[in-house]
Amino acid sequence: MKNNRLGRQTIRFENPPTILNTASIVGPKEGEGPLRDYFDKVECDDTCKEKTFEKAEEYFCNESVETLLHKERLKSGDIDYYIGGDLLNQIISTSFTAKKLGIPYFGVYSACATFAEAIQLASCIIAGEFALNIVVSASSHFSSAERQYRSPLESGVQRKMTAQWTVTGAGSMLLTQNSKPPYITHVTTGIVQDYGIKEADNMGTAMAPAAVETILSHFKDTGYKPDDYDLIITGDLGTVGKDITMDLLLREGFDVSKNYTDCGVEIYDESQDTHARGSGAGCSAVVFSGYLFDQLNKKELNKILFVPTGALLSPTTTLQGDTIPCIAHAITIENTPELGKEAK
Amino acid sequence: MKNNRLGRQTIRFENPPTILNTASIVGPKEGEGPLRDYFDKVECDDTCKEKTFEKAEEYFCNESVETLLHKERLKSGDIDYYIGGDLLNQIISTSFTAKKLGIPYFGVYSACATFAEAIQLASCIIAGEFALNIVVSASSHFSSAERQYRSPLESGVQRKMTAQWTVTGAGSMLLTQNSKPPYITHVTTGIVQDYGIKEADNMGTAMAPAAVETILSHFKDTGYKPDDYDLIITGDLGTVGKDITMDLLLREGFDVSKNYTDCGVEIYDESQDTHARGSGAGCSAVVFSGYLFDQLNKKELNKILFVPTGALLSPTTTLQGDTIPCIAHAITIENTPELGKEAK
Repeated sequence: MKNNRLGRQTIRFENPPTILNTASIVGPKEGEGPLRDYFDKVECDDTCKEKTFEKAEEYFCNESVETLLHKERLKSGDIDYYIGGDLLNQIISTSFTAKKLGIPYFGVYSACATFAEAIQLASCIIAGEFALNIVVSASSHFSSAERQYRSPLESGVQRKMTAQWTVTGAGSMLLTQNSKPPYITHVTTGIVQDYGIKEADNMGTAMAPAAVETILSHFKDTGYKPDDYDLIITGDLGTVGKDITMDLLLREGFDVSKNYTDCGVEIYDESQDTHARGSGAGCSAVVFSGYLFDQLNKKELNKILFVPTGALLSPTTTLQGDTIPCIAHAITIENTPELGKEAK
Repeated sequence: MKNNRLGRQTIRFENPPTILNTASIVGPKEGEGPLRDYFDKVECDDTCKEKTFEKAEEYFCNESVETLLHKERLKSGDIDYYIGGDLLNQIISTSFTAKKLGIPYFGVYSACATFAEAIQLASCIIAGEFALNIVVSASSHFSSAERQYRSPLESGVQRKMTAQWTVTGAGSMLLTQNSKPPYITHVTTGIVQDYGIKEADNMGTAMAPAAVETILSHFKDTGYKPDDYDLIITGDLGTVGKDITMDLLLREGFDVSKNYTDCGVEIYDESQDTHARGSGAGCSAVVFSGYLFDQLNKKELNKILFVPTGALLSPTTTLQGDTIPCIAHAITIENTPELGKEAK
């Protein structure tokens, strides 16, 4: 085996895949948030004139991928694989999008870390020289998620202050073999963590240990330290989970107070009354596809650790009294990689 | 890019991964069927002393992987990735198994073609030299599937003659870099097909066109003909879908009457009153992990095309009047590969 593996959980790509482009489509609430200017399209109606919220989520997913293909003047036939997933039962938003696209398709599921799983698998397939172009996507929708995971919207249940607001939107990315930055140079795949949290409206607390485990493993496997990154950004821990993550990392000797944030924290501001801010598979997908990709392209950021986080529960496991297993997958994205020069 | 791709949908592995071992655990009904002697373990009670059917399915999944590791005297720490999925919402059987295993984890979903998707992704990761050992699994459970997808068991709804019986069981496979047969030499990834079927109790008819599209693409991409294979075996089309598949392939000029069957047809016999025979993500997984792997090891079969099939519907899409999108993924498994010698 080539020297592609670092430690237990990390791959280093000697021939790193390129992120050629991204696309992001969001709903009205996300379009009122601080990142509004970075999204490709803001829908002013979150039903997108569809009859159901599930169909609306499919619209977001499909529109995101179509926008991405349009940007690069590519057709479905130019894409070797479509890899994606979403939060709905049987990942229907993604599978129905795959039906429209007509691209060889792999459905994936890591809850809100789905975008990262898709990127990691796509990176392996491209770096292994089994494909030239791969499109990945992830989506979520506030209203389809609320009625599947929590309470019917009509019942008007009061939300806890630890609850997060599921992002309505879809993000997609085109990965390719190329020599243009930004590159995906390292991927650290998560091991499921479960610290016994049972409250489905306190996901940030449940997911924080998974984020911490993956970030610590990434540092251990690569020899990188927090200062090696311009930004470390988790997926959707929200305000509660972000603080826990910073505290737990500090306890392990890693101070990330200067260069760490969370996509869920960034996508909404204080005034939007979301409580612990954003979540959902679409959250990290649109924040990356909108804001982060822009900052990498403008060289405002040159090296980031992108760590989407997911809670692998289902309404059935919650009703049956199970705790919430969580996972996080980390991806190093950089403009000027110095491969094999990890600070070991 | 190396010459790894053949046509639109197929990868040929120059350095093909080995299937080192498999494990299969099934429920009592499968243990009474014609393949009973090939399974590693037959549970005499399909609840496995768990409190819920969902927990029982998790038991099958976990037991299958633990049995596989035990056979090869490996521990979780020896495995680089665990890739798998199941039919339950949010693939909880697999994710809760991943939590127990503590292996870097990718959850996947292609409905009853999940085992094939996991094998295809694992093959790329191993052939790309990003991992040494990967465990894949897929599971299903009659009772958890019935209550999630169809009717409560207690209501005793009469089943249509086209309905299939979800297999209770889990199959798992250990893929590695090795020089021992059998090898995975080609993978053909499916494109979603939808011929407008809406009946969730007639899955064989819905899935047959997906199987046909993937098999035809495989022949086109590789230049192989039906006679190049000792056996072509689809996943869970059952008796209805098997006949449709044979007819559609014959119409395209491919006579597979001598060497084609379906895992769902083989797992039960006429006397077991299942109507159109077996289905479920566990169906192709246990038939491969039990019967087919045994036959490959004994050289009774030396080259097979394994084509698990999946219906990408959800109860929500059915209630909302959607048709059923389907997918099939094909895998060439052979004992004595002659790579690059496809009969073009």
